[in-house]
Amino acid sequence: MRQQFHEQLDGLVDDLVRLTLMVETAMGRATTALLEANAELADQVARDIKAVSALHEAMDQRAFELVASQQPVAGDLRVVVAALRMTADLERMGALARHVADIARRYAPKRAVPEPLRETVKRMGVVAERITAITRRAIGARDWTAAGGLERADDEMDELLQALYHRMLQDSWRHETGTAIDLTLLGRYYERYADHAVSVARRVAFLTGHGSLDTVSRVGPRPGAT
Amino acid sequence: MRQQFHEQLDGLVDDLVRLTLMVETAMGRATTALLEANAELADQVARDIKAVSALHEAMDQRAFELVASQQPVAGDLRVVVAALRMTADLERMGALARHVADIARRYAPKRAVPEPLRETVKRMGVVAERITAITRRAIGARDWTAAGGLERADDEMDELLQALYHRMLQDSWRHETGTAIDLTLLGRYYERYADHAVSVARRVAFLTGHGSLDTVSRVGPRPGAT
Repeated sequence: MRQQFHEQLDGLVDDLVRLTLMVETAMGRATTALLEANAELADQVARDIKAVSALHEAMDQRAFELVASQQPVAGDLRVVVAALRMTADLERMGALARHVADIARRYAPKRAVPEPLRETVKRMGVVAERITAITRRAIGARDWTAAGGLERADDEMDELLQALYHRMLQDSWRHETGTAIDLTLLGRYYERYADHAVSVARRVAFLTGHGSLDTVSRVGPRPGAT
Repeated sequence: MRQQFHEQLDGLVDDLVRLTLMVETAMGRATTALLEANAELADQVARDIKAVSALHEAMDQRAFELVASQQPVAGDLRVVVAALRMTADLERMGALARHVADIARRYAPKRAVPEPLRETVKRMGVVAERITAITRRAIGARDWTAAGGLERADDEMDELLQALYHRMLQDSWRHETGTAIDLTLLGRYYERYADHAVSVARRVAFLTGHGSLDTVSRVGPRPGAT
């Protein structure tokens, strides 16, 4: 029984890797759509996210069925709860990628990001992709310690957000309020995306049954990072 | 055993009502702190949210212990999973209230919201409070159908957000980009807060064991509302 539980759980973790890759790809496309004012690519992201939602739902359903049929012990149950929280975070990351794509589509064929800010937004996209790849590899390895560079990437995202807002606040900024609103939201989408990725990566520790009960409820986007 | 499980579960739901009231109070204070540039009240919100986090952690821990000691059947387990998701949403709502208070504190003794937008932000605060009260009463009644007026309140929040952005986009808007950034974020905090409240209220259906397995994974902030 326990053997079977662990095999099925293993399948669930494999799907977590797939789900993470789908989100990573979608965010990469969303950033490209944004920087190149590519409406077709933005539409592709919307389709990507539908697939993310479908897999997320299927995984949650399987997790419930797994628990119902196998009646896992407390430690194993905790693994399932961690997996459920990871899929929820990954779905939110997908939704944030779609928001980036939505802004790209609304402006296209014009570009949403003014020239002086392009480089900063581009780097936010690069960091978002890197942070998701680190998370994906940690899940695949079932090893939280494989998530090296995660905190540094998250700090980098925060610095880029501050740089974006700082640049917008400079006197030389001569754009419309509408642009300011959308850039503010874009910055926040990337920042929240990174926070959720960090949250997913931290929960990897619980997939292998490590980490204390105390931590599992505490781990998540860091306080103040909302 | 099942009797004992249900008694403990009942205690958990009572705590959900308490947690919701704490969040509701904090958001009310955050709005007042914002509109009246009251730094002391903003500090109070920070303390409120620490208490919210402490209760959230204690509840999650108890939910895990409950499952571990009682080995609930699938239906009962689903109730616990719903409760865990509700506490997570409520903690996010608390974090958003703190973000509102943080902006209030940063501007005080100046006011963060320019006069022409005060009324809109004030109404967002009123709707946020109403939507939390509806949610709290539905949890207390263990009855999702008691959440009447919820969707209307959520729509009203979306309209207020659009009104806020629309007003910012008007030609007569002559404020600094920094103000535009903070107002954009404020609007989003209130909107997300309402989305999470709706998500919590929808899960009330699962506290009583109703609602299909299919729905429990799907219920949550509506697509596009991110």
